[in-house]
Amino acid sequence: MKSLTEYLVFTTKRRREYINITDAVEKLVKQSGVREGLCLVNAMHITASVYINDAESGLIQDFDDFLERLAPHEPISRYRHNRTGEDNGDAHLKRTLMGREVVVAITAGSLDLGPWEQIYYGEFDGMRSKRVLVKIIGE
Amino acid sequence: MKSLTEYLVFTTKRRREYINITDAVEKLVKQSGVREGLCLVNAMHITASVYINDAESGLIQDFDDFLERLAPHEPISRYRHNRTGEDNGDAHLKRTLMGREVVVAITAGSLDLGPWEQIYYGEFDGMRSKRVLVKIIGE
Amino acid sequence: MKSLTEYLVFTTKRRREYINITDAVEKLVKQSGVREGLCLVNAMHITASVYINDAESGLIQDFDDFLERLAPHEPISRYRHNRTGEDNGDAHLKRTLMGREVVVAITAGSLDLGPWEQIYYGEFDGMRSKRVLVKIIGE
Repeated sequence: MKSLTEYLVFTTKRRREYINITDAVEKLVKQSGVREGLCLVNAMHITASVYINDAESGLIQDFDDFLERLAPHEPISRYRHNRTGEDNGDAHLKRTLMGREVVVAITAGSLDLGPWEQIYYGEFDGMRSKRVLVKIIGE
Repeated sequence: MKSLTEYLVFTTKRRREYINITDAVEKLVKQSGVREGLCLVNAMHITASVYINDAESGLIQDFDDFLERLAPHEPISRYRHNRTGEDNGDAHLKRTLMGREVVVAITAGSLDLGPWEQIYYGEFDGMRSKRVLVKIIGE
Repeated sequence: MKSLTEYLVFTTKRRREYINITDAVEKLVKQSGVREGLCLVNAMHITASVYINDAESGLIQDFDDFLERLAPHEPISRYRHNRTGEDNGDAHLKRTLMGREVVVAITAGSLDLGPWEQIYYGEFDGMRSKRVLVKIIGE
């Protein structure tokens, strides 16, 4: 069994941002030498997500509107978590809706993605250094 | 390490449909010869889900009501994504709520599911050919 | 390839409860002898979740409020599923929002978790015996 472990680091300019990381993950699959296996990609911070959807600007805005509707950032006082002095109570809920991780098949040495599947990093409390873990196992 | 890769194809009759695929996946586990391992099952399209829940008609209707309440299909103009001429903006959100994939343990040569766990394909923009990936690894 | 399969059993005192199971899972990783691999942790019941977030009481209450807002327990008659005589229609939806499973990387013989990542069992229809599956594969 082969394995590869890598940490991608992101510091976004805005509080919320959606970054396409498909090429970065594919590069690691090539580097691993794994032909058949699984690739786990997960946010290591609990106010960020890794998810798979389309790379289309209208859609990304729809996701953001949806998340603000279900778990609005303000008023800050809305969340008990924020009574500790933090302001990211909403980000914990947004990340839960979008998901922590994806597991993608590796087939014939590449990510086995559908035609419009793109791997995204979803940041909900940015402007500081945060990590994504890529773990590849297989043969 | 053994592995198996298979693609299941679905063309639903209605826009939204919920299809029990447990037996199809279990058959692939037997075919793989894997006794201990992991089985990834994921939608390859970004307007469909694979999820695990009960096979009960009232419950499936509850899921559908829930999804329509949180991300209604109409009005079409509600979603920026639909300004490109599409009408499936809601389906991207519904799939996000239900999830892209499941990872199921394989133990002693079978899917290690709880008593009421059933694997479902959730279609939110159907009436065209769409694929589900099954990837099995183990020994 | 090494593998380990274990079932954790929980009987909560209340209908809804959130239990930190990180230490129990880490102990199984050590026991498995796996240095590089993947660890799947999933609820085996369809009214419970396994998810990863912070161990902070305000946050856990925020999750519970959020779930009650999106999928309230009452009125029981709200859910078609409950017409069969059950009262846990909400619990199926709550579990869907929080997720069935997590897949965690194992690196150098330990769970490769971020600084605040904690593995939680989320119970939404408790006060009876329910199981969580831990499956570890790797080398």
